[in-house]
Amino acid sequence: MTIRNAFYAQSGGVTAVINASACGVIETARQHRDRMGSVYAGRNGIIGALTEDLIDTGQEFDQAVADLRHTPAGAFGSCRYKLKGFEESKAQYERLIEVFKAHDIGYFFYNGGGDSADTCLKVSQLAEKMGYPLCAIHIPKTVDNDLPITDNCPGFGSVAKYIAVSTREASFDVASMSATSTKIFVIEVMGRHAGWIAAAGGLAADEKRDIPLIILFPEITFDQERFLAAVDEKVKRYGYCSIVVSEGVKGTDGKFLADAGIKDAFGHTQLGGAAPVVAALVKNALGYRYHWAVADYLQRAARHIASKTDVEQAYALGKAAVELALEGRNAVMPTIVRASDSPYQWRIGHANLSEVANVEKKMPREFISSDGFGITDACRAYLQPLIEGEDYPPYKDGLPDYVVLKNASVPRKLTSQFAI
Amino acid sequence: MTIRNAFYAQSGGVTAVINASACGVIETARQHRDRMGSVYAGRNGIIGALTEDLIDTGQEFDQAVADLRHTPAGAFGSCRYKLKGFEESKAQYERLIEVFKAHDIGYFFYNGGGDSADTCLKVSQLAEKMGYPLCAIHIPKTVDNDLPITDNCPGFGSVAKYIAVSTREASFDVASMSATSTKIFVIEVMGRHAGWIAAAGGLAADEKRDIPLIILFPEITFDQERFLAAVDEKVKRYGYCSIVVSEGVKGTDGKFLADAGIKDAFGHTQLGGAAPVVAALVKNALGYRYHWAVADYLQRAARHIASKTDVEQAYALGKAAVELALEGRNAVMPTIVRASDSPYQWRIGHANLSEVANVEKKMPREFISSDGFGITDACRAYLQPLIEGEDYPPYKDGLPDYVVLKNASVPRKLTSQFAI
Repeated sequence: MTIRNAFYAQSGGVTAVINASACGVIETARQHRDRMGSVYAGRNGIIGALTEDLIDTGQEFDQAVADLRHTPAGAFGSCRYKLKGFEESKAQYERLIEVFKAHDIGYFFYNGGGDSADTCLKVSQLAEKMGYPLCAIHIPKTVDNDLPITDNCPGFGSVAKYIAVSTREASFDVASMSATSTKIFVIEVMGRHAGWIAAAGGLAADEKRDIPLIILFPEITFDQERFLAAVDEKVKRYGYCSIVVSEGVKGTDGKFLADAGIKDAFGHTQLGGAAPVVAALVKNALGYRYHWAVADYLQRAARHIASKTDVEQAYALGKAAVELALEGRNAVMPTIVRASDSPYQWRIGHANLSEVANVEKKMPREFISSDGFGITDACRAYLQPLIEGEDYPPYKDGLPDYVVLKNASVPRKLTSQFAI
Repeated sequence: MTIRNAFYAQSGGVTAVINASACGVIETARQHRDRMGSVYAGRNGIIGALTEDLIDTGQEFDQAVADLRHTPAGAFGSCRYKLKGFEESKAQYERLIEVFKAHDIGYFFYNGGGDSADTCLKVSQLAEKMGYPLCAIHIPKTVDNDLPITDNCPGFGSVAKYIAVSTREASFDVASMSATSTKIFVIEVMGRHAGWIAAAGGLAADEKRDIPLIILFPEITFDQERFLAAVDEKVKRYGYCSIVVSEGVKGTDGKFLADAGIKDAFGHTQLGGAAPVVAALVKNALGYRYHWAVADYLQRAARHIASKTDVEQAYALGKAAVELALEGRNAVMPTIVRASDSPYQWRIGHANLSEVANVEKKMPREFISSDGFGITDACRAYLQPLIEGEDYPPYKDGLPDYVVLKNASVPRKLTSQFAI
């Protein structure tokens, strides 16, 4: 069998465990040196391929590669750069094949969300059309958890764990303060289109800890009157209330709450910030003292509290991608297949990219309680296994010892430039 | 020796480790049942004493008390209720003694910051004046780290660890995204008057991880031009920049940045939110894409990433408080005495409350770099040991198994009511 090289790129928003997938790819490739040559990574994602700015992962010691498993964010850099349809982005697709040819890339591993699954499929189709032999494999990754077929998406379980833990901790705090001070705590979480992350806040409460929680999902149109009544009821009963608000919540006017007219000192509308809007609403209507937090990048970068399940699955998917490639599969994505909820049992499967690209997995309505402010038992049964287990990084001087790679460049072979 | 009861109360903003001090108090008292009777806790702090709303900690199993060591926030409730001078708050002070008499309280443990040290001292003085025998011991606690004499204040080390870890993680994230997207990440941290917590953000960078950081301290008047120039220099050199801003930063007009004119949809000025102000400043002047986070309660409640040093010291101070009381000490506060930086060595000492009350420990200017945007080696040497070590709570179902106590009431003995 001919030994051909592999190209790996990270795409879109990074996560606490995308490097664990990279670790799975590189370590598995190193176990198959007789069939897979160098693993080149795109510097800053697919842009690195387009500009022939490749990183030679072969320059990294085994230990550094192993350390990727416990290091958050994108070790090779990521990018937000979407390739569009064949006609519109023809030059980009052709350039990719040109760069792949120059470096004898026979395996293309693209680690990202829905858009990158679509790109991966198109690259595969173009390669076939051009008669260039290429295995194109998509490795799922997105905190949004919106890819179809796979049980869940790596990155999501760790964000879910972070939000569940943080909501529980902050709720203990506000409960302590509520007699004379803060009665309302609002935490804003990611999720423009789907409430998966917000739902994870619901795990903060359980049979032993009866925490009064209100969750605002992007799937449920924000109804100010009903919301305020629900908050007031919780405060009157428990003395306090914790509110988890998704950044994607919209009002009856169809606008994001976060854009509901907050202006900065210069009169510019502030982007982001559903939490202060919600907190101010409660304060003005009910008079309760509040605190609010916006977790933003902290939630998706929080490798220190990553879900063990998530880390294992992210690694397993990277490993499976290489194995699928070595089996000669093309235009597929390895997936997580759930065999049972409790005990949680899962295995690796795979799906054709044609079934993955441009399909968005929404939260089922039956995962949201009938009043629209909480999660159901079915949702809890789905979410709970995904936050199960801790996988602490090693620490040095009181801080996680995250690796910074050398990221040495592969010498360029092409003379042509490509403008991004 | 007569067996007399003890009263314990938590005061002010709670922390990740104030319950570890409570654990130290209760466990040590239980080891001295021959000399110390019941430990009663104030429900919601000193208000519980004033209203004779006492919790019988004797109703809690040993395991539940042990679990306090890993549970954040205030297990008995805290309050923001400041007793003023003798003349102004005479009724309150006399009421405290009345309640203490009714329940044969011979030991008063007050767990809080500067204000509660002052209250503790005044209660001690009044008891003496009234001929009521009482040992009044203050147990230090404050994330603000602003108490004098003690090397540091329990609660601070864990917040410092959380902010250092979170800043490192989010910096890895923005570094990954910076080629095509976010170049600026702003995290807002607590500290209205002192920059101790903001300083901890500086620990995110070290020799192995050259993270471009700018810290905005409340001690340094915010200079917009110099700040923007510094940010631009970092972005041009590194491709991105992380900014740690204290909620207490003020501009040349003496106003908090957080109050710099942000209005909500109703035209009310928003409280809090220095981070969005700073982010918008950068965006408007330099055009860089940004993300911002406000950690708020998450930082001080984050028991999941508590500093082991902090937990040990918090427990040791609770234990020492009981031992000092049993030695017959009065109007004192156990302290942390630093014997050396590296290796960090510390022991328990104590200070007279007359030297503690109404004295605020500021960040020394030599802890802030000459440009005003970073920390010095001296600051690092002070801070680093305080975040050393991890002390993970036990987990169940993927979440920290924090205890909720029974908090059974002590039957009331007084017929008089007291209005708060």
